[in-house]
Amino acid sequence: MASSEIDKLINTISKLPGLGRRSAQRIALYLLKNKNRSLMPLVNTLNEANSKIIECENCGNIDMINPCSLCENVKRDKQIICVVEDISDLWTFEHIGFFRGLYHVLGGSLSVMNGIGMDELTINKLTQRIKKEEAKEVILALSTTLEGQTTSHVIADKLEHFKNLTVTRLAQGIPIGGEVQFIDENTLNMAFQSRKKIV
Amino acid sequence: MASSEIDKLINTISKLPGLGRRSAQRIALYLLKNKNRSLMPLVNTLNEANSKIIECENCGNIDMINPCSLCENVKRDKQIICVVEDISDLWTFEHIGFFRGLYHVLGGSLSVMNGIGMDELTINKLTQRIKKEEAKEVILALSTTLEGQTTSHVIADKLEHFKNLTVTRLAQGIPIGGEVQFIDENTLNMAFQSRKKIV
Repeated sequence: MASSEIDKLINTISKLPGLGRRSAQRIALYLLKNKNRSLMPLVNTLNEANSKIIECENCGNIDMINPCSLCENVKRDKQIICVVEDISDLWTFEHIGFFRGLYHVLGGSLSVMNGIGMDELTINKLTQRIKKEEAKEVILALSTTLEGQTTSHVIADKLEHFKNLTVTRLAQGIPIGGEVQFIDENTLNMAFQSRKKIV
Repeated sequence: MASSEIDKLINTISKLPGLGRRSAQRIALYLLKNKNRSLMPLVNTLNEANSKIIECENCGNIDMINPCSLCENVKRDKQIICVVEDISDLWTFEHIGFFRGLYHVLGGSLSVMNGIGMDELTINKLTQRIKKEEAKEVILALSTTLEGQTTSHVIADKLEHFKNLTVTRLAQGIPIGGEVQFIDENTLNMAFQSRKKIV
């Protein structure tokens, strides 16, 4: 590749999550071959997104307004707060669409390895929101990884002193469609402990 | 996802080759969370690439100059032209670095299914170049797919009338490191027909 400019483009693209050098090269070539139909529209969309999309200072979601359209929606129950690690988790729940409360984006989970401590997460902001909105329930919808579970415990401890507040976590067990023989030991153990009476 | 602007960004990204909706969502979120460190540098690089990278009207390569730095390189043999389907193939050969002639980017291979006929490829331009440069050899480095092989045949026919021009194609056979038991019938058949005397 003779041109440093092409190399620079490939490098920049390859830094995006999930992309390696080969896929970046393919995308760069596609963009350069379709400047009007593909490269310029991408630049315009990125510029617009850059100027218009902002973070909601209430819940941590991103939107074109602040507070975001979820927080502003009067039909949603402000007193039920679903705590998620990341905006993508919020999107997943919204995509399914069954939850009618509000969200709180933590910004990750506690992790010594990744250098994420209490200060990196929006836990203090969460307690302030609970006070202000007089929340009735906080749903901890974090991952069932070691980090996620630790974070859930830490938050649960922090929220213990709130009277009239219920703190819940998502049910853990066999995923729907899961075959018992293929489920790992820890999940089976948890599913056994949490078994439900049906008759 | 409440914001149409976010949706638009995800849609635009998901149209890039090799990306689906989920990977586009991941990239969009990454860009929006790192506006200064990632989104703006990408926009700047794309803008620069858009204005600076142009197509070489001689060989079809892309570069910051026209004719491109390969065509302008006096050390390269203008009389040997390697015909490739796409710029990415040119990059592959240049990456290996053994070829010291010039290239000719066809722009694909003949395909009824994809609606690519003679007029979509730069075959006429190739014949003009051969005349002008008094080329000694044209190497057809096309894919060994049905389309690639048909294209090779058609080009070879077109070039038949040039005196003093050798037309070659890449050798076909068992790839280096290939185990005979895992090689397909057609390749084995071809490798058998083209066997080479070694002693």
